[in-house]
Amino acid sequence: MSHSYSDQDKAAIYKVIAERRDMRHFLPAPIAPEILQRLLEAAHHAPSVGLMQPWRFIRVSDSNVRKAIHAQVEEERVNTAKAIGEYENTARMAAFMKLKVEGILDCGELLVATLCDHREEHIFGRRTIPEMDLASVSCAIQNIWLAARAEGVGMGWVSFFDPPKLANLLNMPEGAKPIAILCLGYVNSFYKSPMLVEEGWKTEKPLSEMLMENTWQDKGK
Amino acid sequence: MSHSYSDQDKAAIYKVIAERRDMRHFLPAPIAPEILQRLLEAAHHAPSVGLMQPWRFIRVSDSNVRKAIHAQVEEERVNTAKAIGEYENTARMAAFMKLKVEGILDCGELLVATLCDHREEHIFGRRTIPEMDLASVSCAIQNIWLAARAEGVGMGWVSFFDPPKLANLLNMPEGAKPIAILCLGYVNSFYKSPMLVEEGWKTEKPLSEMLMENTWQDKGK
Repeated sequence: MSHSYSDQDKAAIYKVIAERRDMRHFLPAPIAPEILQRLLEAAHHAPSVGLMQPWRFIRVSDSNVRKAIHAQVEEERVNTAKAIGEYENTARMAAFMKLKVEGILDCGELLVATLCDHREEHIFGRRTIPEMDLASVSCAIQNIWLAARAEGVGMGWVSFFDPPKLANLLNMPEGAKPIAILCLGYVNSFYKSPMLVEEGWKTEKPLSEMLMENTWQDKGK
Repeated sequence: MSHSYSDQDKAAIYKVIAERRDMRHFLPAPIAPEILQRLLEAAHHAPSVGLMQPWRFIRVSDSNVRKAIHAQVEEERVNTAKAIGEYENTARMAAFMKLKVEGILDCGELLVATLCDHREEHIFGRRTIPEMDLASVSCAIQNIWLAARAEGVGMGWVSFFDPPKLANLLNMPEGAKPIAILCLGYVNSFYKSPMLVEEGWKTEKPLSEMLMENTWQDKGK
């Protein structure tokens, strides 16, 4: 059809979708301001429920703030390990503790992505599903992820933190909520497969297990 | 840096990010199965918290199911209009009722995207933010949106529905939750700006109002 892209352009788009990775290993090189600006503009092109544009980004340039964020993440990493130990077993807890789950102190740029305050004023598309604002910000973050990969920049989305505690550190107003710590940086190499697969933590399930027709069908967990 | 894409490939990726639109107007042309498959594979390349892969897609090929979904959306559209009337005013309610918010009966393919069941078993990255599974599925949906735009296919994400009611219609098990009705189809033209801007419902705020440094700063709502 006439609105489709050239085969070469389509190939580039499918390629970046397939090659994007959640990165935890970074080189200490800085990211040029104009590249960071392009990535944030890509985020701002995201769809949003009722044109709410609920995304806010806090760029962390102060190394003390970066260290304080890292300390919060480290605390939650330990709490998660304990929870995995209780829910699964101690071997699994030990395996988790060996995983690298973030590159906060190494990455070139650190962003905190948050939901805005005053969200209750937005009813359009959120009356029965208020968490649609998180969906919109997630689409914005995916845009950054893809654009970053094309720029040769890796990104990791860290969710090991306690939102009220991080909100307090960043002086966020009531109603606003941090949902992602985004590590951005150049990398030695992009993982060929998701790092959790490469590290033997988990295997991927195929797409066929995710698809159903007209009604729910159990296809194994 | 060496991992970056060619300028032409980068341009294609930024172009599709900028040209993607939330579509409500569709042509009745079918979508070829191999294109739908590519779009679903794009979704399946999404990042997911702890490699949880929480996305499930129900393809609606039965026209009776499609009509039943449409009826649920129409009911919620009216409920939303009333809520807007109460929260804002009756003029705004009337303006909302004039907006086209979905193309469920016209689009070539209809998908329901859901969160899987048994989500409580996944602790990795979700101990303090359980809604991270929604974030992952949203990234998968954004992948479909971008790939579809490259294929010349429009997509609309409809969130006007009551999740328990739609779950019941689709025989979903406890714990699973529908989060999107996705309308996919060829279009006469893609909106130049978001439809809610073109229709005068709302104006967009600039990126500069979304950016802060090291701490929250009030930049107007």
